[in-house]
Amino acid sequence: MKDKDPQKIWGGRFAARTSSLVEEFTQSLDYDRFLALHDLEGSRAHALMLADTGIISPEELQRILSGLDQIQGELEQNEFNWDPGLEDVHMNIEKRLTDLIGEPGQKLHTGRSRNDQVALDFRLYVAGALERWQSELKELISILLNQAEAHRKTLLPGYTHLQPAQPVCLAQHLLAYVQMFKRDYERIEQAMPRTRVSPLGAAALAGTTYCLQPEQTAGHLGFEEVFKNSMDAVSDRDFVLEGLFVASMIMMHLSRLGEEIILWSNPGFGFIILPDAYSTGSSIMPQKKNPDVAELVRGKAGGVYGRLMALLTTMKALPLTYNRDMQEDKEPFIEACKSVSSCLRVMTGMMGEMEFNKDKMMQALKKGFLNATELADYLVFKGTPFRQAHHLTGRLVAYAEEKGLGLEELDLTVFQDFSRLIDRDVYGVLDYQQAVNRRSTPGGTGPDSVLGQIKDLRLWLDKKNGGSV
Amino acid sequence: MKDKDPQKIWGGRFAARTSSLVEEFTQSLDYDRFLALHDLEGSRAHALMLADTGIISPEELQRILSGLDQIQGELEQNEFNWDPGLEDVHMNIEKRLTDLIGEPGQKLHTGRSRNDQVALDFRLYVAGALERWQSELKELISILLNQAEAHRKTLLPGYTHLQPAQPVCLAQHLLAYVQMFKRDYERIEQAMPRTRVSPLGAAALAGTTYCLQPEQTAGHLGFEEVFKNSMDAVSDRDFVLEGLFVASMIMMHLSRLGEEIILWSNPGFGFIILPDAYSTGSSIMPQKKNPDVAELVRGKAGGVYGRLMALLTTMKALPLTYNRDMQEDKEPFIEACKSVSSCLRVMTGMMGEMEFNKDKMMQALKKGFLNATELADYLVFKGTPFRQAHHLTGRLVAYAEEKGLGLEELDLTVFQDFSRLIDRDVYGVLDYQQAVNRRSTPGGTGPDSVLGQIKDLRLWLDKKNGGSV
Amino acid sequence: MKDKDPQKIWGGRFAARTSSLVEEFTQSLDYDRFLALHDLEGSRAHALMLADTGIISPEELQRILSGLDQIQGELEQNEFNWDPGLEDVHMNIEKRLTDLIGEPGQKLHTGRSRNDQVALDFRLYVAGALERWQSELKELISILLNQAEAHRKTLLPGYTHLQPAQPVCLAQHLLAYVQMFKRDYERIEQAMPRTRVSPLGAAALAGTTYCLQPEQTAGHLGFEEVFKNSMDAVSDRDFVLEGLFVASMIMMHLSRLGEEIILWSNPGFGFIILPDAYSTGSSIMPQKKNPDVAELVRGKAGGVYGRLMALLTTMKALPLTYNRDMQEDKEPFIEACKSVSSCLRVMTGMMGEMEFNKDKMMQALKKGFLNATELADYLVFKGTPFRQAHHLTGRLVAYAEEKGLGLEELDLTVFQDFSRLIDRDVYGVLDYQQAVNRRSTPGGTGPDSVLGQIKDLRLWLDKKNGGSV
Amino acid sequence: MKDKDPQKIWGGRFAARTSSLVEEFTQSLDYDRFLALHDLEGSRAHALMLADTGIISPEELQRILSGLDQIQGELEQNEFNWDPGLEDVHMNIEKRLTDLIGEPGQKLHTGRSRNDQVALDFRLYVAGALERWQSELKELISILLNQAEAHRKTLLPGYTHLQPAQPVCLAQHLLAYVQMFKRDYERIEQAMPRTRVSPLGAAALAGTTYCLQPEQTAGHLGFEEVFKNSMDAVSDRDFVLEGLFVASMIMMHLSRLGEEIILWSNPGFGFIILPDAYSTGSSIMPQKKNPDVAELVRGKAGGVYGRLMALLTTMKALPLTYNRDMQEDKEPFIEACKSVSSCLRVMTGMMGEMEFNKDKMMQALKKGFLNATELADYLVFKGTPFRQAHHLTGRLVAYAEEKGLGLEELDLTVFQDFSRLIDRDVYGVLDYQQAVNRRSTPGGTGPDSVLGQIKDLRLWLDKKNGGSV
Repeated sequence: MKDKDPQKIWGGRFAARTSSLVEEFTQSLDYDRFLALHDLEGSRAHALMLADTGIISPEELQRILSGLDQIQGELEQNEFNWDPGLEDVHMNIEKRLTDLIGEPGQKLHTGRSRNDQVALDFRLYVAGALERWQSELKELISILLNQAEAHRKTLLPGYTHLQPAQPVCLAQHLLAYVQMFKRDYERIEQAMPRTRVSPLGAAALAGTTYCLQPEQTAGHLGFEEVFKNSMDAVSDRDFVLEGLFVASMIMMHLSRLGEEIILWSNPGFGFIILPDAYSTGSSIMPQKKNPDVAELVRGKAGGVYGRLMALLTTMKALPLTYNRDMQEDKEPFIEACKSVSSCLRVMTGMMGEMEFNKDKMMQALKKGFLNATELADYLVFKGTPFRQAHHLTGRLVAYAEEKGLGLEELDLTVFQDFSRLIDRDVYGVLDYQQAVNRRSTPGGTGPDSVLGQIKDLRLWLDKKNGGSV
Repeated sequence: MKDKDPQKIWGGRFAARTSSLVEEFTQSLDYDRFLALHDLEGSRAHALMLADTGIISPEELQRILSGLDQIQGELEQNEFNWDPGLEDVHMNIEKRLTDLIGEPGQKLHTGRSRNDQVALDFRLYVAGALERWQSELKELISILLNQAEAHRKTLLPGYTHLQPAQPVCLAQHLLAYVQMFKRDYERIEQAMPRTRVSPLGAAALAGTTYCLQPEQTAGHLGFEEVFKNSMDAVSDRDFVLEGLFVASMIMMHLSRLGEEIILWSNPGFGFIILPDAYSTGSSIMPQKKNPDVAELVRGKAGGVYGRLMALLTTMKALPLTYNRDMQEDKEPFIEACKSVSSCLRVMTGMMGEMEFNKDKMMQALKKGFLNATELADYLVFKGTPFRQAHHLTGRLVAYAEEKGLGLEELDLTVFQDFSRLIDRDVYGVLDYQQAVNRRSTPGGTGPDSVLGQIKDLRLWLDKKNGGSV
Repeated sequence: MKDKDPQKIWGGRFAARTSSLVEEFTQSLDYDRFLALHDLEGSRAHALMLADTGIISPEELQRILSGLDQIQGELEQNEFNWDPGLEDVHMNIEKRLTDLIGEPGQKLHTGRSRNDQVALDFRLYVAGALERWQSELKELISILLNQAEAHRKTLLPGYTHLQPAQPVCLAQHLLAYVQMFKRDYERIEQAMPRTRVSPLGAAALAGTTYCLQPEQTAGHLGFEEVFKNSMDAVSDRDFVLEGLFVASMIMMHLSRLGEEIILWSNPGFGFIILPDAYSTGSSIMPQKKNPDVAELVRGKAGGVYGRLMALLTTMKALPLTYNRDMQEDKEPFIEACKSVSSCLRVMTGMMGEMEFNKDKMMQALKKGFLNATELADYLVFKGTPFRQAHHLTGRLVAYAEEKGLGLEELDLTVFQDFSRLIDRDVYGVLDYQQAVNRRSTPGGTGPDSVLGQIKDLRLWLDKKNGGSV
Repeated sequence: MKDKDPQKIWGGRFAARTSSLVEEFTQSLDYDRFLALHDLEGSRAHALMLADTGIISPEELQRILSGLDQIQGELEQNEFNWDPGLEDVHMNIEKRLTDLIGEPGQKLHTGRSRNDQVALDFRLYVAGALERWQSELKELISILLNQAEAHRKTLLPGYTHLQPAQPVCLAQHLLAYVQMFKRDYERIEQAMPRTRVSPLGAAALAGTTYCLQPEQTAGHLGFEEVFKNSMDAVSDRDFVLEGLFVASMIMMHLSRLGEEIILWSNPGFGFIILPDAYSTGSSIMPQKKNPDVAELVRGKAGGVYGRLMALLTTMKALPLTYNRDMQEDKEPFIEACKSVSSCLRVMTGMMGEMEFNKDKMMQALKKGFLNATELADYLVFKGTPFRQAHHLTGRLVAYAEEKGLGLEELDLTVFQDFSRLIDRDVYGVLDYQQAVNRRSTPGGTGPDSVLGQIKDLRLWLDKKNGGSV
């Protein structure tokens, strides 16, 4: 009996100590630390419910609550003494509580298992992260709306296939990103109620023989939902996966914006001047001004995707109920969470200080025959069937390119050699601002559409910020 | 000029023909075919809107609609003549329409680009798939509820770490899966409005100069939402990724159920008798009865995950707006869709015919000391602090295992050697059915909880099936 | 008994027919078809070995071989009659063989199981794909070497962070890709011996009681290696995963080249003129010339990555030996194989016809202060400590940028205001070609290094093409 | 000027300080720390080469080397003072060196950039990890060989589809894993030369104007290979991806072994008794003995796969040469490395102490009709065509199962009702050990084959351990 491991709570049927290699391998403290305050929060709710149902006395409740307060203080002051031999956050806190207040500390575990306890702690963590992302998304959207407002008349090429396609205003371009981030926000809103579900009362997997009241625990937590099935409650990690998917989508959108910043700060584009505070130089090439921030944002998308894939793979084919594999849910989410938050914040900072170079954008418009569609539409308006108009314009572009001219620089006689239907009014049609103005249908790049979009989005933002509208 | 490619609609500025290697490489007909009927649906809505706004005449509308009807017939009869040289589904149908009805066929393209057209076609396809999954999920849930109802008193070991943990009823186990599939259903419900958004009117990327009315097009499609920003409209593939994520979650849940079927049909468990119609044999080993269906379901999870990853990766860092990379969105979704639908359907069929072997389940209960938690709880009830009770029970299990007995087979004197608090009433506590019955808190495995779960889920299902409740 | 499925070879212990849903779900003919010729190849080798060991007679061997020949003809003429009810390629061919030649057709199955048979068929398929990739890689390398040779004196900006960094010659840039594809080639060379391992003789999982001679079968196949452990032989899919990894690496390299083609064909760069045969236009914007081929290559990387992930996930945690999940190995590899081959081929075609615009490249050099490092090095040479030289040059670049001038256009007095160490010889140092020439250490962008690289790579290529050198 | 950031080495052209958010976001010290000793190693080699070529004097060399030694001491004693404001490991060490020895510290940077420097540091790190994995794989293989040796006569069911298929000896089962790990070892051997390539001399991207001798630097590092193309040298991360692929394969193999340990420790199998030191208990269920170690190994496969996917995705479509995204290469590899090493080590420890329960294995053989193939083969031997023999045996199994008997327990008259060809000698054929013995062809489960496999693998291991054979 002397070989046994006196510290382990489950040591009863074991004849030999856990190998230290195994202790190190199975402990989860590296990431469990992030759950410590949530563990206290869950314990408080559990204790309140235990008192409601009379399982513990009011006096025991008070001792538990004040013990938990003291531990919270120690955690916040970084004075809590973590013991890796105690495996995880729950055991560390329970041990400390029992040291502080004695037997009531043990009673707190009544009707609770680490299986439902860790599920709750992590649900609280994920819900907190989702809320943080929401407010970070709103910050970014707000900054983008400001830039859009300021650049309603700044024109640049709209690209398809990274080839200049049609002129658009910069506001329209930026508002496209706002739509993406708004969808991300909405996905979080929808994932939230599936995250804020209290699993306490599921115990190890089957529910408990104590007359717990799970609804009441949920109430003390401020959760609207309580688990419906105990076996599901301890083996469900959908909420983590939803969080990782939302994170992947945010990163995908940010990587697209990042790519554009990288492109636009290349001198061939030159559309933006990177804020000094958001770019770095080279240790060897003195002329360099590098869009490192945008590159890292783009690069970190890979890491977040990988973490979604990691947890999907880990969860694949696990039989019910809890399996230790699930311990590997924390690292992916917690690290992805860091990436998402830091990327949203640096992008917000950088976009807020971004300056745009209108001259360079105008040069790019001219170089790209961005008014070719206008000419084709003009020909259609004059009665040419659409496909013929398109073909004719293509030939005019080829001619102009060969001559090194823009379409707007061709002589009227040249136009008329291609089609007798073209008249002097073509030059108005070829003007870039007019081209933009004419796309005035809802959702288009025209000024009314853009103004309407900004107005609607500001209303939405105010509403989400709790403002009265 | 004679070198040119007369067929290509964009051939105007090109001096040389497309390489046949490139034609084969860039054509998308393999998967576009799946969009053909949706392309007609979109064209009808677009034509109706063009007529509403007076861009085409009522007579032109009639000719277009009847031309589209004829094409629909040809497609349905498998008589449509696909031409890979025409690149994609849109050009194939447009060409056929123009052949059939002449110039009005060309007018149909007014204010529309393949960029917004393909986005619409694919949104219709994805929305259709999501609806199908919903009804397949409901079928599976319905079958699982029937089995749960029938097995409210069938007991089996509940597992954690694939080790017997506590006795549960089979209904509780099956209902855990119902919760998972119900969440999948809800995720689809939430993704649907972001899928059913009409992008028509965004044109190539910037909106259009024709006075289109996008809201009206959406109305003709029966869509509630219309795009808000033209650049977003043609470059947004969030709806496909949401579909792939939902698919991955369904497959993850199915893979877990598949794993259990594989385990339970192993003779060491023997909990189920696979329906002959849902299992196969071996060409070399005559005794084999293999759970191939469950294995393939489990295996196909990998393929669906991979497709989510594929499209996330493809979309990473793409600048606005449309890029040809996005053509690679169809294969992943369409193939994932096949996997999800076929897996849901075979699983429903198999679960409906599944027989459960109650004797084997009872044997497994006995072999697994599944009543150890009861004993520990009994000791707590008698006044032993929780952790001590746990430790004591662990030692009793070790003793019983050494003797080759179940806990319920130990003599009272043995019990009392371990703790004087144990009395004759311990044998009632160690009974499996009673152990299950005592877990009667909400969500637990007790009979009331299970009955309540089934009732609530049936109500939910009726509601989703449109029934009055 | 009348309910039974007379066709199934394993029907003995089954009382009910397979559900048609299940038949459709479990059949693998969609991808097995690709294995048909390899199945014949494997059967020939097996038959020869059976004859060697006397298990079949010489006459039986002849009938088998001629039956297999006839089936090969039917397959090649597309006249083979596939029956999905026969599940897979092996049963289809075996059935046909038995129909053709009677009992010897059944004997061919002696000591063989579908488990080792499919492993062999797929090894032959993968080995064939790897060989094809090797020759496609050599074609691409050869074309890149030609372009490098032709552009040893074409200068362009070398980029880091997509910012102009230092001038390089185009040859050096293209040769970097040759190094990548050469590594891909070498990875294939190394994976090949692990692919060309004969599993025949492993039978279902345990070996066989017939006195087979696996080494001899391997010999008839032209394989150098034979399986070492029967359980590993039927459950090993490492060779498929290695193939998918190699495919992913090729696609990653191609996606980088694709990205550069997309960038370089944007007018802001304008470095290349896409061959008309390798680009497409827009149905709506007549001026467009889109790098679709490069975009699709870039986009297809996602699909191939996803397939690697799919099979890794499918194989995770499968117990020994064969599990039906493994049937899902074929789709990923076969589809990835199509992507890799088509991408290599179009990229080779496109790079062969690519024209480079030297003027645009020179403009980009000037715009990017690409000689700043030269100036810093010059200052170091004149005695300024490195970090100070770097700092000083940075300030000079900022000054020149503000004035809208290149460094080479600044007056000597300006230079001397910044550092008295700068003299008239600075203007030679700032010349781009000289800057390139001076990087003449091995591996650098200088002419000797580049010439040496090309020579070495041609030698390597000749050797791999089997030429004497 | 006063706003500038005096500390940044590249601050020359910047008017504003880096935002502290950005400083935190872009710094890489969290993972760079792991490279510190390798950075010193690279600096030593670079300094030696600089001295060889006369760029620095022997005295400067001595000062540099002793400065580096002092820094090494500080690092090893954990006394090195990291400054996050200095961005990365290179700048931290360079700054410290310059503080210690003055100007020669700056000279060490001659002809070197952080781009080639970090590539070298990380190549050294990856090469070290690969070597460690090799020795850990050898340890695991050695332990598995010992267990195989000890269990050459221990029989258990060989499974396909997790259904009992044919009897095998445990040695054969374990040796299948040895083959997997041996392949992993070989993949590492092949990846090594592509990892141990010195990139020093590539400088920022284009080579350098200093007369460096890259071959000599490689020599001082003990590397056989030197970079061939400077642009490739700074943007190649193939070696990291190869490392991650090898890691994924190792984890895939370990996850399969882990799955079997989990299955086998379930009481339905009961094939193993987990060492107490390698299992844990439950805080609530006193009877539990959980295979946590095996579960975590299985779960960690997901995390490693995800990291492979992460870096593949990050590297996708990056233009030449260095991009900051590549900084995201370290976290995935370093974390994957921890997982692989710890999993290999715990698995080695656990397998070494694993006890196998022969009785349970024999029971499983009997329950599973594991001798059915023998009966079918027997019938073939007696002249029944293979397919008929298979069918007949299937019917006999169905009959025996119905009666609750093993095949070996059926009366001869029963056998003869099914086939007159069956005689008394059938009972010998149905014996399990004989069934195993008869599979004596190379690679099979028969005793000679197994002995031969063990011998060959021991020879291989001795050779890899450098022993003379």
